[in-house]
Amino acid sequence: MRVESVDLIYVAMPDVLPIGDGSQDALLVRVRAGGCEGWGQCEASPLACIAAYVTPLSHSACRPVGDAVLGAPIDGPADIAAITRRVRTESFDLLQAPHMLSGVDIALWDLLGRREGAPVWALLGAKRAYPKVAYASALFGSSPEQTEAIARRIRSQGFRAAKFGWGPYGTSAPVDRALVMAARDGLGPEVRLLIDAGTIFVTDVEAARARLDALIEARVEFFEEPFTTHALSAYRRLAAMAAVPLAAGEGSHDPEMAANLIEHDVRVIQIDAGRVGGITAAAEVATRARERSIRFVNHTFTTRLSLSASLQAMAGIEQFDLCEYPLEPSEMATAITDDVFGVNAAGLIEFPDAPGLGVSMNAAAVERYRVPVEITVGGRRLTGGSP
Amino acid sequence: MRVESVDLIYVAMPDVLPIGDGSQDALLVRVRAGGCEGWGQCEASPLACIAAYVTPLSHSACRPVGDAVLGAPIDGPADIAAITRRVRTESFDLLQAPHMLSGVDIALWDLLGRREGAPVWALLGAKRAYPKVAYASALFGSSPEQTEAIARRIRSQGFRAAKFGWGPYGTSAPVDRALVMAARDGLGPEVRLLIDAGTIFVTDVEAARARLDALIEARVEFFEEPFTTHALSAYRRLAAMAAVPLAAGEGSHDPEMAANLIEHDVRVIQIDAGRVGGITAAAEVATRARERSIRFVNHTFTTRLSLSASLQAMAGIEQFDLCEYPLEPSEMATAITDDVFGVNAAGLIEFPDAPGLGVSMNAAAVERYRVPVEITVGGRRLTGGSP
Repeated sequence: MRVESVDLIYVAMPDVLPIGDGSQDALLVRVRAGGCEGWGQCEASPLACIAAYVTPLSHSACRPVGDAVLGAPIDGPADIAAITRRVRTESFDLLQAPHMLSGVDIALWDLLGRREGAPVWALLGAKRAYPKVAYASALFGSSPEQTEAIARRIRSQGFRAAKFGWGPYGTSAPVDRALVMAARDGLGPEVRLLIDAGTIFVTDVEAARARLDALIEARVEFFEEPFTTHALSAYRRLAAMAAVPLAAGEGSHDPEMAANLIEHDVRVIQIDAGRVGGITAAAEVATRARERSIRFVNHTFTTRLSLSASLQAMAGIEQFDLCEYPLEPSEMATAITDDVFGVNAAGLIEFPDAPGLGVSMNAAAVERYRVPVEITVGGRRLTGGSP
Repeated sequence: MRVESVDLIYVAMPDVLPIGDGSQDALLVRVRAGGCEGWGQCEASPLACIAAYVTPLSHSACRPVGDAVLGAPIDGPADIAAITRRVRTESFDLLQAPHMLSGVDIALWDLLGRREGAPVWALLGAKRAYPKVAYASALFGSSPEQTEAIARRIRSQGFRAAKFGWGPYGTSAPVDRALVMAARDGLGPEVRLLIDAGTIFVTDVEAARARLDALIEARVEFFEEPFTTHALSAYRRLAAMAAVPLAAGEGSHDPEMAANLIEHDVRVIQIDAGRVGGITAAAEVATRARERSIRFVNHTFTTRLSLSASLQAMAGIEQFDLCEYPLEPSEMATAITDDVFGVNAAGLIEFPDAPGLGVSMNAAAVERYRVPVEITVGGRRLTGGSP
């Protein structure tokens, strides 16, 4: 069969705020072929991705992503790999392309799974899907007191792990210590604690180093993104000083970027299937991580559709035991899918026994939050799909 | 003064073809402030860049590039640096942002130079601008015979250096050898020869290694982009085997990416100001290259406006002596500016004695090739500037 239609559906909260909540909007991708349907989501700017899909050709290495998708054969995983290869080689000067490809790739895996009646992780070759320890992904409160209160709530909800990040973190070493210790106090001694610096130190190794003692004292399991994604030397230098493993990778939009972080002593590689190029690319990184005895953790901060997509590459690998779990996604992000991939009483996420990504979309909610987009270039209307 | 207006102007040839010619379209940026005007150009997909400029906010790290520009103070270089910092920290999840920022940054430097009556290289701190040896940047012919004919023509035009790339290169080691030797034969013994593999070997070190002997035999001065931009380990491994210096970097959209290539034994760092984040970012790379005794070469393949922008960061550094020079840009790319930055009888490019970038736009030609763009999101028209 061939890809018969691709719809790009931009959904958003009525008011999107300049806060660290990445679940306020989404670009959904719906693909149809042979009577089947699949859904995916880009973790990216919806409008920039739509433009990358429909843009006129610039030259042979800057083609619209859509050129590689509509009408392409889609009978099995090898066909998805072929689309990925084509976008990588024919759109590499179109910077936004990998973010757009991600949603397409995820939707195609969902479609294949639904057609085969098999979960995506099974199509990837896994024998079973291991439950994962959900870590509640939260922002630091604006004070240690608020942070401690958030941590207590997370513990009372039954989570066995929690990550705090962003907000005031980075203000000064003493302020940051107080925040980290408050998180530990609120979680109690048993709950696993992770800290996310949100790239606040950019490339400044000394600034990051000044935070290490508090992390050890609070028994932090990994220290995420002290630096920006391309600051490879800074990661290597800090890793040489740090008793706590460094985590990074969510900004990777190519599996080679993740490989570079691994080469520079990042010990927990974090991949967002909605950015790295989809499940195909995420699986490449997971394979490499397993070979190198590096931990792979999903990155996700939005819908259950994205959560599921981010988990497929690690589902069948038992030692990849931790799973990022967005604690309070927006009303929109919650409404547009059914309520699967919840956290059970043991603090674990179990994979539903369902084909594809195992997530059903709520058509009415998608329509309710839909933002229409019209793009016309040189008098020619390039968009016009409506869900 | 403050940035009063920013116009994004998409120009293109009437028929854009799927060939390796990056001069078939362009996104021009015109900024105005305090009665002055400046022009810049993104080396990127015009529509994807426009979307990155106007897109609605997604979250605090995925803001439209425009938020950092319109109304911002613009009294000196520090103000451009502040805009760069803001885009890097507030739009880092908007993948296309650096390509869009590039054109804005270039236009702002042009504007400042025009206001001060000084060339941009002088604003960057250079005492003088050294003439550069222009290398004719050409595509391989489809056969050795065609390649030799192109090389003869380049030599007869007085060029002292030439680069061949893309086209059939990568077919097989014997085919590639014949192409490289034909280029050398056509250029004669004196003209400097550079070879560009156009990332054709992706990450395959052995495939690239099989091409090295011919490069040595043809006295090739550098071997450009055997691998994709993120394939750092492959660059290091090939560099350890290669007597010819490796060149790369045109795909960098962040100065740290260029730094990573330098760390991985790339010895000629090639930077396109229209992609890396503008002249500000290009100057960061040039400074680092000088400190590390690495060669810096501009990348450009389109208008004289982009050629000038790509040269500013290296203008005042004498040892950066080679300059990429697009041999046959499209009719559009030639028409929209005046005829400056030509190659003199000695095969050199001299910097015009003119403020800013030293390039004047041809308003009638810009209008003739202009492609109108309309983007409406949620019923709100986001574009509408006309030149």
